[in-house]
Amino acid sequence: MEQTRENKQVIFKAYIDRAPAETDMELRIGTVAATVPKGSGMVLLKNLYLSCDPYMRGRMRDFRDSYIHPFTPGETIEGFGVSEVIDSDNTDFRPGDFVTGMIPWEEYSLIRQPDKLKKIEHGRSAAPLSYHIGLFGMPGFTAYVGLKEICCPKEGETVLVSAASGAVGQIVGQLAKLEGCYVVGSAGSKEKVKLLKEKLGFDDAFVYKEEQDLVAALKRHFPRGIDVYFDNVGGEMLDAALLNMNAHGRIAVCGMVSLHGVGNPIGIHNLYNLVFKRINMKGFVQSDYAHLMPQFLEEMTAYYEQGKIKYVEDVRHGLENAAAAFVGLFSGRNVGKQVISVSST
Amino acid sequence: MEQTRENKQVIFKAYIDRAPAETDMELRIGTVAATVPKGSGMVLLKNLYLSCDPYMRGRMRDFRDSYIHPFTPGETIEGFGVSEVIDSDNTDFRPGDFVTGMIPWEEYSLIRQPDKLKKIEHGRSAAPLSYHIGLFGMPGFTAYVGLKEICCPKEGETVLVSAASGAVGQIVGQLAKLEGCYVVGSAGSKEKVKLLKEKLGFDDAFVYKEEQDLVAALKRHFPRGIDVYFDNVGGEMLDAALLNMNAHGRIAVCGMVSLHGVGNPIGIHNLYNLVFKRINMKGFVQSDYAHLMPQFLEEMTAYYEQGKIKYVEDVRHGLENAAAAFVGLFSGRNVGKQVISVSST
Repeated sequence: MEQTRENKQVIFKAYIDRAPAETDMELRIGTVAATVPKGSGMVLLKNLYLSCDPYMRGRMRDFRDSYIHPFTPGETIEGFGVSEVIDSDNTDFRPGDFVTGMIPWEEYSLIRQPDKLKKIEHGRSAAPLSYHIGLFGMPGFTAYVGLKEICCPKEGETVLVSAASGAVGQIVGQLAKLEGCYVVGSAGSKEKVKLLKEKLGFDDAFVYKEEQDLVAALKRHFPRGIDVYFDNVGGEMLDAALLNMNAHGRIAVCGMVSLHGVGNPIGIHNLYNLVFKRINMKGFVQSDYAHLMPQFLEEMTAYYEQGKIKYVEDVRHGLENAAAAFVGLFSGRNVGKQVISVSST
Repeated sequence: MEQTRENKQVIFKAYIDRAPAETDMELRIGTVAATVPKGSGMVLLKNLYLSCDPYMRGRMRDFRDSYIHPFTPGETIEGFGVSEVIDSDNTDFRPGDFVTGMIPWEEYSLIRQPDKLKKIEHGRSAAPLSYHIGLFGMPGFTAYVGLKEICCPKEGETVLVSAASGAVGQIVGQLAKLEGCYVVGSAGSKEKVKLLKEKLGFDDAFVYKEEQDLVAALKRHFPRGIDVYFDNVGGEMLDAALLNMNAHGRIAVCGMVSLHGVGNPIGIHNLYNLVFKRINMKGFVQSDYAHLMPQFLEEMTAYYEQGKIKYVEDVRHGLENAAAAFVGLFSGRNVGKQVISVSST
């Protein structure tokens, strides 16, 4: 009989049409094969770090028309993760290898199609392993692609970043500074604003929740207007930004986290600015730009190693706290990129 | 003493912040020099056709932050026009020349800077002179630039055009058909829909005012979804289109005529579709693409002469009716491009 071991898992319960709650997930003790079946080509992973990202909320809706399929009720949540190979029947992977890819939210995973995993090349940098789901992973690549390909910032231009201390925003701001731009971030607390200004090198930052009038706040921060808006939130900030954009401005629409909880999202009233200001507003999904991944990894590794880019993580320990960590994204409880470390070893 | 003659003029009265009304303009009998002063370099025009375009409403607001300056209260309205040179002290123009350019709404105009006028080359085509403020003028160029540069339609793609029988829309649809697209127009009356389907070669068209549910109407007309939306109206049609767009769709934001009357425009709720559908939404102003004008004139003239593109005008006679013709744009009273013919000769 096949040997198994206990396997703590985070299960997705049922589709929702509101902001995620901890009760939409539950912890289950399942089982996993203790070794990889011979001849299967599979690998067995010990999962180390799991990524909490806002896009995952889209997989909690019963909506099949998106770029990524919804979660299956009764099965584990999944997302980007970093794992260690502990057994392998696949010549591409050996025990001791570290990999990233789509990883189920559980302690151990038997992966049937390991060709979708990506090996982390050691020696690439001295960065923590968890950065491979952050700075060097999907959030970093999203920031890179969105800023460089959609926003095309030029030296001396002004850049607004919303959710600026988040997984993506903090990298956008630092990359824009490296391009010679004037960068202002909006964030949800004084602590985050301090981080942006003192650690991450933003020229300025403000707590959007403390502003009575976002249009006036942006006018104060951008007396010359905004050339580039990297939009992670949608909603009122987008509306206020439209009124403050300069002619030929660019808006990268990366996400609309402000809308994730809302069945009928608030209306955007200032789109008429697109016409006379000739604004380009583009939604994007990083996976469409896979051809830029090697160049991204090379540049970002160099920036990191030269100390030109920093990364702030908010690490929660244990699968017991995974649901709370994920749900916290939508009220901005995380300070920096939200990561779950699966084991304490 | 300088000889003058009577000159009927349409005067802009005062800035507004609502839809234009006839009472915002008034007819005045002014005077104009009967001949061009020697040594002045000026030309004297007899104005033949004046163009009524929705963008002119923007010049009725006291708003100096746009791509074009506002009208001056107490002075004539101005817009694109076709005129005949009747006297000239400028070596570039001779009596009998026909020109287009920014023309005051009056019978005769003494032009101090004739270098901004463009001579109409005779023999270019057998088209009516008025087409030089329509098919071969700003509206035609807007359609051309917006469709080709912003929407990049590919053979077999689906295209939605709003205000489809208007000055710009009718050309967009015909150009898209020439690119091998499936084209559906939305318009405000059965008469316009008949025109689109029977004369202008649209694959289909519908009366948006008769639809209870625009989202369902678009789903019915585009069971495979919309690849390209050429947006002349904004508002509810844009919101409905966003829900029906395909992945990698393109939206050219040409104008938002539905918003021209509104101080606080209605909100657009479905922008979150930009992200997961990777939609590119771009506002544009044709004058930014001046380098494409020669190529546009060549292609459009060829299309017209080969009978591949038709143009429908709605001509109102006399400056007495100019204000009513202009105001009618905003309730869709015109069928085809709204032109004012200044003199009955």
